[in-house]
This record gives sequence, C-alpha cells and structure tokens, in this order.
Amino acid sequence: MSERIRVGVVGGTGYTGVELLRLLTMHPFVNVTTITSRAEQGVRADSLFPSLRGYCDLEFTDPEQSPLNECDAVFFATPHAVAMNTAGSLVEAGVKVIDLSADFRLRDIPTWEQWYAHPHTAPGLVAEAVYGLPELNRNAIPLAQLVAVPGCYPTAVQLGFAPLVEAGLVDPAHLIASCASGVSGAGRQGKIDNLLTEAGDSFKAYGVSGHRHLPEIEQGLNALANMPVSLTFVPHLTPMSRGIHATLFATLTAPGQDLQQLFEQRYADEPFVDVLPAGLLPQTRSVRGSNICRIAVHRPQGRDTVVVTSVIDNLVKGASGQAIQNLNLLFGWPETTGLITAPPLSP
Amino acid sequence: MSERIRVGVVGGTGYTGVELLRLLTMHPFVNVTTITSRAEQGVRADSLFPSLRGYCDLEFTDPEQSPLNECDAVFFATPHAVAMNTAGSLVEAGVKVIDLSADFRLRDIPTWEQWYAHPHTAPGLVAEAVYGLPELNRNAIPLAQLVAVPGCYPTAVQLGFAPLVEAGLVDPAHLIASCASGVSGAGRQGKIDNLLTEAGDSFKAYGVSGHRHLPEIEQGLNALANMPVSLTFVPHLTPMSRGIHATLFATLTAPGQDLQQLFEQRYADEPFVDVLPAGLLPQTRSVRGSNICRIAVHRPQGRDTVVVTSVIDNLVKGASGQAIQNLNLLFGWPETTGLITAPPLSP
Amino acid sequence: MSERIRVGVVGGTGYTGVELLRLLTMHPFVNVTTITSRAEQGVRADSLFPSLRGYCDLEFTDPEQSPLNECDAVFFATPHAVAMNTAGSLVEAGVKVIDLSADFRLRDIPTWEQWYAHPHTAPGLVAEAVYGLPELNRNAIPLAQLVAVPGCYPTAVQLGFAPLVEAGLVDPAHLIASCASGVSGAGRQGKIDNLLTEAGDSFKAYGVSGHRHLPEIEQGLNALANMPVSLTFVPHLTPMSRGIHATLFATLTAPGQDLQQLFEQRYADEPFVDVLPAGLLPQTRSVRGSNICRIAVHRPQGRDTVVVTSVIDNLVKGASGQAIQNLNLLFGWPETTGLITAPPLSP
Amino acid sequence: MSERIRVGVVGGTGYTGVELLRLLTMHPFVNVTTITSRAEQGVRADSLFPSLRGYCDLEFTDPEQSPLNECDAVFFATPHAVAMNTAGSLVEAGVKVIDLSADFRLRDIPTWEQWYAHPHTAPGLVAEAVYGLPELNRNAIPLAQLVAVPGCYPTAVQLGFAPLVEAGLVDPAHLIASCASGVSGAGRQGKIDNLLTEAGDSFKAYGVSGHRHLPEIEQGLNALANMPVSLTFVPHLTPMSRGIHATLFATLTAPGQDLQQLFEQRYADEPFVDVLPAGLLPQTRSVRGSNICRIAVHRPQGRDTVVVTSVIDNLVKGASGQAIQNLNLLFGWPETTGLITAPPLSP
Repeated sequence: MSERIRVGVVGGTGYTGVELLRLLTMHPFVNVTTITSRAEQGVRADSLFPSLRGYCDLEFTDPEQSPLNECDAVFFATPHAVAMNTAGSLVEAGVKVIDLSADFRLRDIPTWEQWYAHPHTAPGLVAEAVYGLPELNRNAIPLAQLVAVPGCYPTAVQLGFAPLVEAGLVDPAHLIASCASGVSGAGRQGKIDNLLTEAGDSFKAYGVSGHRHLPEIEQGLNALANMPVSLTFVPHLTPMSRGIHATLFATLTAPGQDLQQLFEQRYADEPFVDVLPAGLLPQTRSVRGSNICRIAVHRPQGRDTVVVTSVIDNLVKGASGQAIQNLNLLFGWPETTGLITAPPLSP
Repeated sequence: MSERIRVGVVGGTGYTGVELLRLLTMHPFVNVTTITSRAEQGVRADSLFPSLRGYCDLEFTDPEQSPLNECDAVFFATPHAVAMNTAGSLVEAGVKVIDLSADFRLRDIPTWEQWYAHPHTAPGLVAEAVYGLPELNRNAIPLAQLVAVPGCYPTAVQLGFAPLVEAGLVDPAHLIASCASGVSGAGRQGKIDNLLTEAGDSFKAYGVSGHRHLPEIEQGLNALANMPVSLTFVPHLTPMSRGIHATLFATLTAPGQDLQQLFEQRYADEPFVDVLPAGLLPQTRSVRGSNICRIAVHRPQGRDTVVVTSVIDNLVKGASGQAIQNLNLLFGWPETTGLITAPPLSP
Repeated sequence: MSERIRVGVVGGTGYTGVELLRLLTMHPFVNVTTITSRAEQGVRADSLFPSLRGYCDLEFTDPEQSPLNECDAVFFATPHAVAMNTAGSLVEAGVKVIDLSADFRLRDIPTWEQWYAHPHTAPGLVAEAVYGLPELNRNAIPLAQLVAVPGCYPTAVQLGFAPLVEAGLVDPAHLIASCASGVSGAGRQGKIDNLLTEAGDSFKAYGVSGHRHLPEIEQGLNALANMPVSLTFVPHLTPMSRGIHATLFATLTAPGQDLQQLFEQRYADEPFVDVLPAGLLPQTRSVRGSNICRIAVHRPQGRDTVVVTSVIDNLVKGASGQAIQNLNLLFGWPETTGLITAPPLSP
Repeated sequence: MSERIRVGVVGGTGYTGVELLRLLTMHPFVNVTTITSRAEQGVRADSLFPSLRGYCDLEFTDPEQSPLNECDAVFFATPHAVAMNTAGSLVEAGVKVIDLSADFRLRDIPTWEQWYAHPHTAPGLVAEAVYGLPELNRNAIPLAQLVAVPGCYPTAVQLGFAPLVEAGLVDPAHLIASCASGVSGAGRQGKIDNLLTEAGDSFKAYGVSGHRHLPEIEQGLNALANMPVSLTFVPHLTPMSRGIHATLFATLTAPGQDLQQLFEQRYADEPFVDVLPAGLLPQTRSVRGSNICRIAVHRPQGRDTVVVTSVIDNLVKGASGQAIQNLNLLFGWPETTGLITAPPLSP
C-alpha cells in the first residue's frame, strides 16, 4: 500500500461519488483515505451503499475537519457551486484537483453565471483549469493542477461530432443532438419526477428551452471547428438506470467522404472509443459499468444528412470513470489503469 | 344488442388485436361477432389475454371458416401481406374494411414492393383505399369502403409536422424525426431482442438505414407541403411497454410566426389532439391507453430550429383506437364514440 | 348534472387521490365539486397530473376554506392521522365520510397508537366506523356514516385467506403471507428509496420486523376465524408501478376438501372477485387499473400446505376503487357503478 | 499465457454462457480456447454479445468438430439432457467437467427422469458427480472429475436454510420458500412470456404445482437435516433482469437460540456469504454481477416463525460464478480467484 497515492473524495454520497468509490477499489495505485459528506458524517459508506460491503470500510467525515490537503489528489463529486469555494486552497497546497461538477467547465464566466444562476467565486481558477476530455484534449491534461471533468451529455455528443467537425465536413450552423439519459443522470435526490412510478414506463423530453450542457458542448465544438457552431440540443429521460444515448444529425457539406473510415481512423488509438463496424448500432447496455464510448455513423438513404449514434455510461465515461482516466494522465500512469474491469453485464 | 353492427377482427392474437377487443368492449354500437386466428383457433380470447376475463367470451375461429362477409365491418390486425389477399372479397360483399397493416398505406406500388420486399397482389384496392388519419383526411374517410390505418410513427410524426408543413414555414429538404417507441411496437412475437432481459434498462436506435414508415411519412408530408419533402427518420427502442415519443426538428424559413398560436388554432376542434400550453412538454405516460395525441412546440434559444414533441399510445392512436375513430366516421357516429374511456393511468 | 351527488376529495395530490379523480370522471351519479390540498392550493389538478387534461378542470383549494360540509360525501386520501381530526365534524353535518387512510381501520385504540406511533384523537369515531371490505362486510356498509377503506395488502390477503379461514380448514396459528407491491404503494413522495435508480431492476423485502398492515389483517382474520390467528407477513418491493401480489401459505387441517370448489362457491356472486380455473395463476398486469381481485388456489404435490395467490391493483381495489365500491353501497346504487371501465391494458 | 489452463465452453450462446465468458476474461489462470454452439458456429461471440467487444475474439465452433478433449476443463452451459450425452467421453479423457445444467444434480435417477421428463442416458456419471455448492460441500469438490453446479433457486434457498436445518432448530415438515427471480432465469430464448411487454411492470407466481428445483432443494436439505424434509416452493417472476430473492419461512422448534449469531458463525469464513447485521434486509441490486450471497435472519414479533431472506445474482452465484468457484477448487487455486471483480453497480 505504501506506493499508492492518497486520494480524497468530497461529496461521496451521490451517484458519481459511489461510482468513484466502486471504481477506485480496483485501482492498483490509489488508496482512498478520506470521503467527506456534511450530511452523512459518521456513516459508513457501505451502510449507505450495501453494494460496497466487503470492499470499503471508510466512513464519511465532515469536509471542514478532513485532512484533504494531505491527499495527493482530491475528487469533487459535489453539486455545482461547491468546488469553486474550496478547490483553490487545495490547488495552492499542491493537491491535484479533479472536479466532476460544472464549476470549471465553461471558460466564459458570464456564460457560466447565466446558465448556473450563481455568481462565480473563483474566476481565476477557471482560467487555470483544463477540460478533461482526454480524446480531444489529451496533451493539456498531464500538466494541469485542476481538471474540469466534462458533463455526461457533452462527452457523448462531442465524441460523436468530433470527427465530422474537426474535418469541416458538416454545416456548423444546424447541428442537432437528440439525446436520452437514464434516471441516474438526475442524481440521488428525492425528487418526485424521478420516482419509479413517475419515470418508469414513460419517455419525455425535458429542458428543451435550454439545458446547461448546451453552452459546454458548443464551447467544445467551437474549438474543434475553429468557428462558432450552433447546436439544437434536446435531452430526454428514458426509463433506465444508467446510460446516455446521443443521436446526432448534421448536414454534410462534402458528401463524398468515407465516413466510416473517417471515424475509425480518428479513434484508432483510443482505448475507450469503439467505432462499430459499418451498419451496426450501439445500445447503452453494451457499455454499462464501463468507461467505453461506442459510436456508429450512418448516412440514411445516401442523402446529405449524417446520423451519428454514441453511447456511454453516464456515471463512468460520463463522470467517474473519465475522472479516473484524468487521474491516470495527471500521475503519468497508463491511461487505462484501473478502468479495464470485467466486461459490461449482459444481460 | 339488435341495433349494434356486427364486427369481425381478423388476426386478433397480436397486440393491436387484443387492443381492438379491449376498446370495442366499451363501444355502444358494436357487437364483435367473430375473431379469427389460424394459430389459435378454438382458444378463448380471455384465455390468451386474461385481462379480458369477464369482458369477452369469444373464441378464435379459422378465418377460412368464419362468416366474415356477414359482418358490417371487419378489422384486419394481421401482419403485412395478409389483408391484401382477402380484403377484396369483403369489399365486394359490401363489408367496410379497416386494415391496421401496411398493405394499403402507400399509393405507389413499386415503393410498397421495395420497402416490404413482397409483390403486391391487390394494386386496384390500393387506389380505392383511403388513408385513415382523420385529422388530416377527415372528409375522405366517410366515403371509403376500405381504410388504411396509418402506422404508429407516421401518426405521431405527421400530426407533429402538419401545422408547420401545411403553412410552409419550414425547409422541407431537411426534416428530422428522432422517435422512441415502447416495445409493444415490435408486436407479440417471441423475439430475443424484445425480451425484458434485452430491451429492459437499455436504449438503442434501430432501422437507421431505412425504416418502412419513412416512405409513408414522406408520402403524407409531400401531400401537405404540396412539394417533395426529405425526412431523416431515426426510430429508437426504449424500455417501456406502450407509447411513441416523436421529437421533430426543422429549420424555420419564416421565423416571425407565433408557433404556439399556429398549433393551437390548427388543432382547436380536434377531440384527440391536445396542444400543450407554451413551455410544457408531454410524456408518453400521459396518453397511455387513450386515443389522445399531445403536442408541444418550442423554439430553443430563439434560433431558427423549431422543435416539436408529440406523444401517442402506439396501440391506441397509433393503431386500434385510430381504427375505431375511422369506424365511427365510416358509420356516421360521433367520432369519439367508445373512445372516451377513463383517463390514462397515473401512475 | 343536477341529480348527481356532490363529492369532495381531501388530499387529492397523492396517488390514491388522483386515482379517485380518474375513476370518478366515469361515475354517472357523482359530481366532484371540491378537491383540497394545503400544499397545492390554486394549482389545477390537470397541471399536476397531465393525464387528467380534458377530463378535470378543478383546482386544489385550502381544506380550511373549502365547503366540504356541503358535500354529500367526502373521501379522505390523506396521510395517516389527518382524517381523525376533521372527519368528525363532517359526520356530524351528515356527510358520508370514506377514509382511505388507516385512521379508522383498527378497532383497538392502543393497538392503533402503538403501530402508528401517534395518539388517536377520535376513538369515538373508531367505534362508529365500518370496515369497508364489501366482500366480507357487505351488510354493515350501507348503514354506515363513516367507512374505513381497507389497506392494500389487507384487501389482497383477507380475500385470499377468507374462504379457508371461514371454513376452518387451516391451522390459524401459522398463517403466512409473502406479498409483493409495486412502488406506488409507497405514495407520491420524494423518497430516495423509491427512485427508479433505487427501486428499479431490484427486489427486496421490507418491514419484516413489523408492518402496519399486520394488525389490520389479523383483526379481520380473527373475526372470520372466530378465534385469534397468527400471521407472519412479509411485504416486498418489486419494480413495477401498480399491483399487489399476495402469496399465502397455510397448513390444511382438513385436507379432504375440494378447495377449487370452495373458492368458486364463496365468490360466485362477487362482481369483483375472479377465481381462476384450476391450474392457472394470476399476474398483477391482468388487473391493472381495474377493481378486480383475481385468485387462484393450489395444493402443491398434494401435500398439506395450501397456496393461494391473489392479485389486485393496489390503487384501485386496494384503495380508490374500493372506496367507490363503498360509496355505491352507501348510496344504494349498483355496487359496480362507475367501476366497470375498459378492461385492463394488455400489454 | 503459457501457464494458463485451456478451457472450453459448450453452449456459449445462452445467458450462463456469456456470463462465463464475461467472468473468465478476468481470470488470471484461465485461457478460454474453445466455445461451441451448433446454431451459431462461425459467429464471433462479440457479435452476438456486443458487451464483449474488445474482450473476446473467439468465434463459436461446431461442438462435434471442436477439440474439447484437449481442454483441461470444460463447462457445459447447455439445456438439460445435453451434457449427459457427451460429458462421459471428456471425463474419460481426463478433462474436468463442470456442468451448469441439471443433468447430474439429482442422485436418484427415477426422480430426475420424472421431473425432467426424459430418460437419463448416463446414470453412472450421476453416481460419480459431485454437487458443487462449496459452502455445503467444499471437501468433496477438489476430488471430483465432474461437478454438477447447483440451480439458482437451490443455491439461494439452501444457503438460507442451512444454518437452521443443520442445527435442527426448525420443523422440517413445513419449510416454505417464496422466491422471486429476474427474467434472465428463463434463459435467452424467444418466448412471448418473457418479452418486456409481458414480463415488464407485472408480477406473478409460476410453477406452483411443481418446479424442477424442488427435488434438488429437498435432496440438499435432507442431507443437511439427516432426515426427510418437506418444502413448499413457490417461484415468482419479477420485472428485473438478474437476481434471485428467497424468502424462507420455518417454524422454530427451539425458539431460545440467537439466530443472528448462528448465521454469523456458520458463514464466518465464507468469502461469498455475507450475513447482514441484525435488522437489515438485502436487496438483489446489492449483489448484481457478483458471486456474493447476502442473507438476513429475522423473527417477526418474536413469534415462532423464523424468516430468512437471501439474495444472489442468478447468473453468477446461481450459475457461472459458482461454476468458476468450483473450477478454482478443482485446480487448487484460491477459491476467490477471478471472482473478486469491481463491486456491484449502484445504482
């Protein structure tokens, strides 16, 4: 154990928190030493999450009283507007900070404040933070002290659009993302809308007038396109626990291209992106519990609209798995360390 | 009972068949006298579907031996390429025929034969058939002898696009429909893909390269637009039993229009179309078991892409309920007869 | 409308409340004039429950300000320990009160206070109340001013055990009920345990050390047995929305009896109890949305343990439908009035 | 790879087959060299099960043509009445055979033939086979050449009853097991009953008149009790993918015992049995994908009926995980080798 780094998890009582704990039990170079929660201090993690019985004997401690600055790395699995208040002192203390919330994702402070309806208390840290989507930003991450882990929809959508947008093959003014998320995306909170009786056996769109992941996705695609893009983003709630399915539409401006080859080449060396053979389509079940993104590209009827479908587990590649992928890059370990677990459950 | 018409159901063992039986038990002017099934002849319907116990004491009979031509109306709830072989003789006998399959939906025979991979044996009947989407084709239906009931996706998609396309407000060359269906849309057949273990807790697109409902929807929208439209249609399978959710995207060519008002006026007199108040979004649960289509229209970020969401119960408004709505029109009864049942279950 | 009685619903925002509203829209002799909710006053019912759009234009009012005593009948669909405070004045005003909560179910006040951990404020009303399980208590109900509607588990369990216990065929000291409930049984409250992410795709027992429905069931069975019985009652949570499935075990003391015949005869005249043919087993889907209880009796391996399975919709026969069945008895209408809706959805 | 043993899987296209493949990818001493399927020969396993993409590049081969006798161990994940025809020659060739089907579970041939309605073709092998429930039969397994892996229900039920029956604390004449299984227990076959539309959102008992696991459980409990026991066993189908929940009832004959302590001591050294702290109850989610059995014991109301609840993943501890646990014992490896994967998914 002596060579393992010390890791803290702030806010370990939500779904991204428990997923971090789950995945970190398998990580060979990490020792989770501290998990904090104001509400659950004194409670054992495996009492809140019986699935951890036999794997984790930690108990939640008060974040104020916890020796987080003695950690080598700290994950924030907190609601928005929490990490921005305390990440700074950890960064100063030399701790690597990996934030799963949205606090450091948007470069533009007014945009952040508009979408999150909250003043930003650490604009300086935003400038310093690195956006932790390794497949699009791998070189910058190892140098970072503070990583902003992308949102779940932004991960699936950016990975799906990237080959097309980077290559300038689609009309950037009319990108469309029609996405479906499992209910765990709404977090572990007692909301009526997410009861089995409400979310079960039903399907609905939500946030059509504006979802916080829209500016994050557009920021990322703008950078890839090297010009402003315009995205219409419609998220839906689907009656499953985990998983994001993104269905992306764009108008091809250069229809001659072999899109299958484009995608396969773009992701040829990516350990966590699986471009399906031509003609297949991914389903969310096939990535459940894993850090893999599976992608398919189609051009229905040979027309000028391209359709990309992209699936991830929102709690893994869309949150905690990607956070660990960033941790591996920060510490110079192989990027897949601790993330090649058993294949997804089938069924 | 003497004033009720005699009704037959051919192929009553699938989900649209049992839904017809369920709804017709409540219809005051109908007496179901014959239900046929080659595979289940001699079996009582309520033994196959215990939910019918106490409501229906009919047993399935061999279609060849059944006095279908003594009926006043006959529903075909059969797989494709069945009705086209026997509907003709019923039509000749003066029986009103309401076909829930695809046999008479497409006007263009080569198109039908291409998508259904089967020679069409009754092209003459196709010319005679009326497309039974009352909200778009109400005047033609009462005069018909043979009604082609629309498919489930085509119902949800056409009702959602109609106000925009009729008014010529959107670019017809780049219409997009991203739809999700419950598993009952796949029928009552023992297919591995539709097991709870396969379709449950997962989400996937299917038929991206081409779904049979595409030419049907385009045929309908072409007529409304009075010009050829081009639709990209991506259906998805979502882990629920009933329901279709259509999310429609189009580029506005005349962005000044009040879209909410447009939709409300278009459907003001429709008993089965409910345009939601501005800002709301429908969910499939809210129409389960009912013949209602609920629709919302949004213009995210005030940009030039309009988003319409439309929900129906695929087995009711998308099949058997709509078939009865057509029956009512054919016989001159109030269009809602037998279709205003108790409100949808919540939860 | 003039001949309809005026009905109020107190606490209409929970699942039994909306189910009452749903079912009462179909009742020919009832006019719901008042629905109350302290939390949601001023909100339209169909805004909280979009499934009611087009069926119900009432809005919730403050119970204190509502003319409940002008009603002919008032339903309480409130949490426990509410009705006992206000039912009395309505009873005095001559209003028929039908309480769906537990306040008047247990005859023995100390037992009630022990299980509900609350002092009972209206012991006098308990003495006056009639237990509203029509199949076991039909004669007493029409004379009542105050009806205590049975709990969901107690309905399924008592109807299943009644023929055996009344006939004295089983050992009363070792009755066992292993029951499973859909999540709607837990009510419409934002509890983490009932999120789709927690209750979905999982199965668990709960309340093994003691569930409030135990004394209610034992009180009922004691009366049928004319001696004290002892029941072991284990409820389970199963990932579905509606439905209760009771699996009952007892040791036969007189094994010679024809149990199938016993059950068929006991319930021969009951409109809402369906004894399945020998060999069949009911499933909850077959009663969803209906007031029917379906029952099967088996004697595995011909041994001395009898197994009864009994299914109801917990919100209909287990709550709101049964409440309306009591209303019909109170007002002298046919017992099935308003309760023979379309057959249960299949699928 | 050179030190790994060569393993074959016969019949790898069902749910226990793919689960074996999933788990064996993580096993450090095993190299799966052959997977056979008559129906799917020539098909890659990861094309049938996309969750295996990146983990397994094997394709199914014809069992007749496959070099199974060159393997060190062969798993049979076949339907009943298959292994009994071919296991013999492998056993003779010195291959260790681990059969996940029922062919070698029952010692008494006439009993097997009665319940499985098939003549047994290898009674000699039955005599040789060892019942592979390590917690009850650990000493015999390492010496075996042929292991009969227990059924899923028998695993959960025997582990739950064992401490009580071994200690002689309960009446053996009236044991009751009320169990619920996820739909994967029915296998990967296209049966209408197991469609999401049929099995979803519903609950039912099945096989009440007699389930094949009854004689298997009674055989095991007879051995533990050293006398004949009589069990009433009622399985139920619950709308989830994986998991078995057993609720066991028995009458205490020596009520003074500390049952919590009894269970904790009985399983103190078992790596895969987790006795929950007093007062808690397990749910199936907490063991999904893992080889763990979690058990709780209660004595409701302090009466003389004991209630044990026991949960397993039917495909892991109830089939493929237990098969690997047996493999480890056969080859002298630590019993947990390859079976301590990441904790179960939550949610």
